Amino acid sequence: MTSAAPISALTRGRAVSEQVMPGLEAALAAKYDQYLPGFSEWQIATVYGGPYDRDGVDFKTRQIATVAALAALGQQTRPQLKIHVRAALDAGWTPREVAEVIMQMALYGGFPAAINALNAAIEVFEEAEDV
Amino acid sequence: MTSAAPISALTRGRAVSEQVMPGLEAALAAKYDQYLPGFSEWQIATVYGGPYDRDGVDFKTRQIATVAALAALGQQTRPQLKIHVRAALDAGWTPREVAEVIMQMALYGGFPAAINALNAAIEVFEEAEDV
Amino acid sequence: MTSAAPISALTRGRAVSEQVMPGLEAALAAKYDQYLPGFSEWQIATVYGGPYDRDGVDFKTRQIATVAALAALGQQTRPQLKIHVRAALDAGWTPREVAEVIMQMALYGGFPAAINALNAAIEVFEEAEDV
Amino acid sequence: MTSAAPISALTRGRAVSEQVMPGLEAALAAKYDQYLPGFSEWQIATVYGGPYDRDGVDFKTRQIATVAALAALGQQTRPQLKIHVRAALDAGWTPREVAEVIMQMALYGGFPAAINALNAAIEVFEEAEDV
Amino acid sequence: MTSAAPISALTRGRAVSEQVMPGLEAALAAKYDQYLPGFSEWQIATVYGGPYDRDGVDFKTRQIATVAALAALGQQTRPQLKIHVRAALDAGWTPREVAEVIMQMALYGGFPAAINALNAAIEVFEEAEDV
Amino acid sequence: MTSAAPISALTRGRAVSEQVMPGLEAALAAKYDQYLPGFSEWQIATVYGGPYDRDGVDFKTRQIATVAALAALGQQTRPQLKIHVRAALDAGWTPREVAEVIMQMALYGGFPAAINALNAAIEVFEEAEDV
Repeated sequence: MTSAAPISALTRGRAVSEQVMPGLEAALAAKYDQYLPGFSEWQIATVYGGPYDRDGVDFKTRQIATVAALAALGQQTRPQLKIHVRAALDAGWTPREVAEVIMQMALYGGFPAAINALNAAIEVFEEAEDV
Repeated sequence: MTSAAPISALTRGRAVSEQVMPGLEAALAAKYDQYLPGFSEWQIATVYGGPYDRDGVDFKTRQIATVAALAALGQQTRPQLKIHVRAALDAGWTPREVAEVIMQMALYGGFPAAINALNAAIEVFEEAEDV
Repeated sequence: MTSAAPISALTRGRAVSEQVMPGLEAALAAKYDQYLPGFSEWQIATVYGGPYDRDGVDFKTRQIATVAALAALGQQTRPQLKIHVRAALDAGWTPREVAEVIMQMALYGGFPAAINALNAAIEVFEEAEDV
Repeated sequence: MTSAAPISALTRGRAVSEQVMPGLEAALAAKYDQYLPGFSEWQIATVYGGPYDRDGVDFKTRQIATVAALAALGQQTRPQLKIHVRAALDAGWTPREVAEVIMQMALYGGFPAAINALNAAIEVFEEAEDV
Repeated sequence: MTSAAPISALTRGRAVSEQVMPGLEAALAAKYDQYLPGFSEWQIATVYGGPYDRDGVDFKTRQIATVAALAALGQQTRPQLKIHVRAALDAGWTPREVAEVIMQMALYGGFPAAINALNAAIEVFEEAEDV
Repeated sequence: MTSAAPISALTRGRAVSEQVMPGLEAALAAKYDQYLPGFSEWQIATVYGGPYDRDGVDFKTRQIATVAALAALGQQTRPQLKIHVRAALDAGWTPREVAEVIMQMALYGGFPAAINALNAAIEVFEEAEDV
């Protein structure tokens, strides 16, 4: 009778993603579903109905953790890093805080990864200022 | 006469590292300085007199960011991940919070990285319980 | 009443994982769920109710693709590589075929990654022969 | 008197590369040999006279394995991924099959790697449709 | 009374960086310090007042070692690779020597990493020729 | 009669590998060729009849470049790093020089990669002292 958890994975994923990145599922569907039926639903359920919808650690912490990881993984995650820098700002982190965490990643992912991530983050900071 | 910033890098690095990981500098010196004169001082100044001693984001956040990054970078950072999981617990994160952030890294570093990191973290949780 | 997709993600994930790796969900639950409630279900739904349960490319191909990727990603994925080498054999690939694909990965992940992956695979081949 | 294997490495490598990517050796020679004498021959012999010319697993399987690995390794291999997506289509895989394998790599290389690889693959699919 | 080592880290770092990359600190400060106060000083002290200023191995060797590592780490370090290819030429390595070391990295970082690094290096070689 | 380049690849590769790592080809053959016919010859021809046998940069430089790259790539290449640290010592680099280059890799591959590589190198240094 209770709605089993996995149902709410997609439903809750949609709720989370609509709040954090309005229009994401539609954009994913338009781009990928012709090649990969159901991909957009799977990603929404897995990512936004997964860790980002879980209790156990607050949402704001999750956003800075993602920024840290993407910065350390290097330039190859640039588009996703920019999305999550924006999400970190939306979650209440200041540009300074985001930049501090990225700088710290020089110790773990190396200076090139950190510098390239700072460059990506600054683009987001400056877009945010333009608004 | 002026207390130039770089002086305090080593001095403050020592203060931070002594608090977070007592005995670290001596251990580094004993292991590495015979091959690499001054390495222990350089690491203390760079890491603990660097990002971990900066303002701009709180120390507790820095610890979870490091755990996230090391988990995403995968098994190759296992010894350092264990050290920083311990440091994250010491900084006030619960095992649940640490585990949540590591699980989330499956999305960015892949499931093998996340699972192997969870295994390392659980070893630390269990050692901590034994105390 | 409606068979919503996400429900079947866990249900179908269980069906797939029970066939490929009997006992996996119980093992995951025993190890991780005390720290991370629901992790085992999330992994089963995401991985085995996700790509491995999809149409579009046959299951056997998915297994060799995973072996290729894990080999190229290097030694850090060793435990998972061994699991998927075993799964590739179960899916009908011969040890020779698995070894060929791993050797090929020297071109993309470098020789150290390929050699270390071959070593892991050979352990699986030899365990399989012992049975 | 017997034709030693290494001779055929370059000879067979040329045969394979001319079939799979006509003009490759000449393009490599024009671009690199002035800085690196013999580089084009070494690459042709090593890659196309190496794994891609071996028995033991069929050529079509080798192509999807390479796509899987390059997708998992992330955006940094983008130019090579596009070349091998094209080669996978030429070897008989459908765009759907290629996309499925790339999507699966989200589990091993993370979502950013998989999404960026899908974007690269879709460029190839669309170029192929234009022909 | 003696100037403690960390002071000279920044001072010596400035001396080294001014020789190798004139204007670097000012450029870093202009770009990053508004978001990250003191970042430029930290990087100069850590990198150029760190390993690049140490005895124990000659400066020229350090430059080729960096080129090797950045090539093996792949395309994500492209901007930094170009900077260090230029620095390697300035330190006395020939384009041929730089290219040889990059080609060798195909064995460790894979062919895509090596090819993409060669492309970046050739851009630097050609800019150098234009001067 | 013609000394075709690829022939000498295996022949010269054998000459180089016998000098640098006596018994390597036999060891590779014993371990891998039952699963992968001809693998040992391919590796010898590609690696030791490839870059390590080329002119253009001296052999000693090639060894330190490899150590740098393997250190930056991290712990996953540990067995190969140890082999090449030994080869670097044999080529005339001192333990100090090898350690300096590895320490420098903290800047590019991060501190965990550098520390773990130093640990591996020190094992080799100490084995060398025992002889």
